[in-house]
Amino acid sequence: MTYCVGVKLDTGLIFASDSRTHAGVDNYATFCKMTVFERPADRVLVLLSSGDLAATQAVIGVLRRRGEAEPINIWTATSMFDVANLVADAMRDIERRDGPYLDNSGIRFNASFLLGGQIGTEEMRLFRIYAEGNFIEAGRDTNFLQTGEAKYGKPILDLAVTPSATLDDATKCVLVSFDSTMLSNLSVGMPIDLLCYARDSLEVTMQRRFDTGDAYFEELKQRWIAGTRQVFHELPGLEW
Amino acid sequence: MTYCVGVKLDTGLIFASDSRTHAGVDNYATFCKMTVFERPADRVLVLLSSGDLAATQAVIGVLRRRGEAEPINIWTATSMFDVANLVADAMRDIERRDGPYLDNSGIRFNASFLLGGQIGTEEMRLFRIYAEGNFIEAGRDTNFLQTGEAKYGKPILDLAVTPSATLDDATKCVLVSFDSTMLSNLSVGMPIDLLCYARDSLEVTMQRRFDTGDAYFEELKQRWIAGTRQVFHELPGLEW
Repeated sequence: MTYCVGVKLDTGLIFASDSRTHAGVDNYATFCKMTVFERPADRVLVLLSSGDLAATQAVIGVLRRRGEAEPINIWTATSMFDVANLVADAMRDIERRDGPYLDNSGIRFNASFLLGGQIGTEEMRLFRIYAEGNFIEAGRDTNFLQTGEAKYGKPILDLAVTPSATLDDATKCVLVSFDSTMLSNLSVGMPIDLLCYARDSLEVTMQRRFDTGDAYFEELKQRWIAGTRQVFHELPGLEW
Repeated sequence: MTYCVGVKLDTGLIFASDSRTHAGVDNYATFCKMTVFERPADRVLVLLSSGDLAATQAVIGVLRRRGEAEPINIWTATSMFDVANLVADAMRDIERRDGPYLDNSGIRFNASFLLGGQIGTEEMRLFRIYAEGNFIEAGRDTNFLQTGEAKYGKPILDLAVTPSATLDDATKCVLVSFDSTMLSNLSVGMPIDLLCYARDSLEVTMQRRFDTGDAYFEELKQRWIAGTRQVFHELPGLEW
């Protein structure tokens, strides 16, 4: 499994991904699922990958190659919408190439992405691109998107990740959401890759990896547990 | 879907169930999924039902009939372990009766239960009985059991439902867990049936139904949201 979250706030974007891949509990490994394409003062694009690692790596590989070779690519696109279509094109090309061979083994092509960022003077945007290459875009009503093991971590995001939340508070909330998910699903695991993008900055200044035992992450967990237990204690008691 | 929770604390048991049944979003209804068998000063047995309503109602019906007609039944059993086996026997009898007819329509027999309570001087016990009739019992390491749509509400239970938690605090936590679940899955819905059992009391004194708009439940939700947002705000900020 995988857990990836993309958040769109009024003041910025947050991206986070776990890094566990597995083919059964007796065969797991660590791979970074976050890919950043950055050209300061021009564009920041962030992709978070879910699905078969061979498929998602192939898609990223195609995007990089086309970025060097073709006229319309991730470096020349003038809108995030066009970038989402370029990702979809790469996915569909990989599916055309690999799909029939996977079918022979009874495996379905499976890759999906969260894509977010900003290009030039266009607004920041955040998309979820499905395995078929179609996609949806986050808005103010639904301002965060998840892929993979989304259920355990969703209620915590619902609590505090509103469009007007600060980048600082929403980032803590995203990290707690990862902790909740990892506690219940072994197929989601550290390290966690985190990137926060400040609106209109057009550069990456806040990026961080959390490894197992990370001092900040451990403190965050402990203080979240203590804080919420205190909240439960202070909630009004039930009259029977 | 369904959402049921059973909790075993040092000082008592908590049971909660939603009451939505459905066959597609265009066909849903309300049925109580909590059944209580009580003989004060002797025993309190609580069953929470998940699965096909026809199956779970049939099992409860069989338990009631056998309670009037057969020598070894839910009223004469001297251990919760024996009650769990009586429930399993009833489930297997119903499966034998109905299963082949369901098979003809491509439907699998599907009923499961949470069973908890106390009989005489035996300790309080809590079981999860699977559709096949086998069962597991909660212990101190895992002191709550869920059925149905368990994922959304689990992290909140993990936070505060420890064996040493008070009945009061753990009950608030269970209610918040239901709220989180209902927010994300339409097939789990109000009213919520709640029962708290105080250890060694051998009677039901705390039972309550929460309908849509219940004033206490609404206040709990709002204060939980405000409280946790405050916790996020006070958690240490991330240094990049």
